[in-house]
Amino acid sequence: MLPVRIERLSLKLPERVETAAELAPQVGRSEEWILSRTGVAKRHIHDGPVEELAAEAVRGLSLEVPPDLLINASLTPRQLIPDTSCFVMRELGWSGFPSHSVHATCLSFLVALQQAAALLSAGVYERVVVVSAERGSICRDFDEPESAVLIGDGAAAVLLTRGDGAQGLLGLRIETYPEGAELAELRGCGVYRHPNHAHTRPSDNLFHMRGPRLYRHAVPRVEALVKGLLAELHMSPQDIDLVVPHQASGPALAAIPRFGFDPSVIVNVVAEHGNCIAASMPMALAHASQQGRLTPGSRVLLLGTGAGLNVGAAILEL
Amino acid sequence: MLPVRIERLSLKLPERVETAAELAPQVGRSEEWILSRTGVAKRHIHDGPVEELAAEAVRGLSLEVPPDLLINASLTPRQLIPDTSCFVMRELGWSGFPSHSVHATCLSFLVALQQAAALLSAGVYERVVVVSAERGSICRDFDEPESAVLIGDGAAAVLLTRGDGAQGLLGLRIETYPEGAELAELRGCGVYRHPNHAHTRPSDNLFHMRGPRLYRHAVPRVEALVKGLLAELHMSPQDIDLVVPHQASGPALAAIPRFGFDPSVIVNVVAEHGNCIAASMPMALAHASQQGRLTPGSRVLLLGTGAGLNVGAAILEL
Repeated sequence: MLPVRIERLSLKLPERVETAAELAPQVGRSEEWILSRTGVAKRHIHDGPVEELAAEAVRGLSLEVPPDLLINASLTPRQLIPDTSCFVMRELGWSGFPSHSVHATCLSFLVALQQAAALLSAGVYERVVVVSAERGSICRDFDEPESAVLIGDGAAAVLLTRGDGAQGLLGLRIETYPEGAELAELRGCGVYRHPNHAHTRPSDNLFHMRGPRLYRHAVPRVEALVKGLLAELHMSPQDIDLVVPHQASGPALAAIPRFGFDPSVIVNVVAEHGNCIAASMPMALAHASQQGRLTPGSRVLLLGTGAGLNVGAAILEL
Repeated sequence: MLPVRIERLSLKLPERVETAAELAPQVGRSEEWILSRTGVAKRHIHDGPVEELAAEAVRGLSLEVPPDLLINASLTPRQLIPDTSCFVMRELGWSGFPSHSVHATCLSFLVALQQAAALLSAGVYERVVVVSAERGSICRDFDEPESAVLIGDGAAAVLLTRGDGAQGLLGLRIETYPEGAELAELRGCGVYRHPNHAHTRPSDNLFHMRGPRLYRHAVPRVEALVKGLLAELHMSPQDIDLVVPHQASGPALAAIPRFGFDPSVIVNVVAEHGNCIAASMPMALAHASQQGRLTPGSRVLLLGTGAGLNVGAAILEL
């Protein structure tokens, strides 16, 4: 068990809302098609810089003083160099303490949570802010309706401390299966299909997903991983008070009760937020907090899949 | 002190070499100009995928079994999604354990080292591989000779364990100063100047640096940080057996003796390797290992600056 306490949470939803009905003509599908395939009725869209969205989430923590480490756990960067965390620092008027970014696609928040817990536990830092902010809407390919209608923008932030030792990360497992690397991709924005190369096409710079194949690969792996994690901790699904999944899609969320969890304990905001990539999981956690569902002593299971293919889960005692 | 032991190191230099004389006509400057301004006589250039370069560095560790965590501490990604660590896993035929990337520009290796040490120390993992592989040559802007002639490609990998407690990370400091965010930039490859946006220019997708301003900002900050770290550990420059700097440029390396270190203890390979971004620091460390300079019990100071502006240093006891 790594002692860690979630002191504060913050959820930031951009003001502009785009409904399935508004999106339907852009992707050449009906509103009903969108709703039945993905369950996403609306999503928020951020039109400004991604670091502004991140900073708004951090401001929502109402910190009296800056933390001593800022981790940006997000997938859509502002630009390649410097890393996005520097721009979040600039936006907040912060300077002189460390910041960096972690990237593990949709599981970036889990990786950051584990890093923060290990660093807090070792006494290296005392107050760590993790922020996830995504502006994936820019990377939607409207010629691929299945993925384009899933994505939304949003951000969430948490302030983590070591706490008094009662709270902590009871366990965490992440597994990377690169045989699924091509199931969800944005092939551009790096050195493989660099923007200036003649063979790079505009669609390379947009997000693509083989939804049904991804679903078939991911669901059994998440199920096995969650069962393994519970077994390691001598726990059963009934010991979990709240399940906070990555909000991948309506069908992905619908698979979770099959792992043994009652639908009433599963946080499901995909209909209102869409899939906000790495921000989805902390956004769902912050949403649950706003609803008063993060009660002291309760046990929260975070779980999800991400491009990579990554599967992961963590159990927190609050 | 965080217990951590560097079990093995590996350096990978791409076969193709590009000399200052060969580069001179491409940037419209003489070989003498390149040598006097940057000190980079030659650099290696990798023409294949970046994950192949990373995998070759990892293979150089001659691991009998895979580690239980792979951290990619690099700045030039293969593509935006999935993260590059998944492709390194694929290249190595690895699957089923966690991988992720960290991005703190040229200090990514320091951040990964700290994360790995904290996770090993907490007993979360037992064997962690950190790999840094850069193919920055693709992002050179030949219309900006000052930065274009600095950059080279290369990779290095380390296998880290908890060791027996005698070895460890005695201290580490990183500071982010976002007021210097525009001193070294690649503005594209993200959502700010997305490749498909009409206002994004080809030069946005290439690396730019305001060298003299960066130097003036960075050198005093590194000096203050190193002195602060030494003071915190009740050490003086004479207690350091080896200084392994980020290989930013000839002039940047030439400033280090002023901090109180004898030039003979400073690893300087910038003339042969150029600036290999985040890979520079572990490459210099692996080079020192090949030279037999990483003797048990010795104290190594890693230090450097990166876009951001990031400054950082760490002291390891081997």
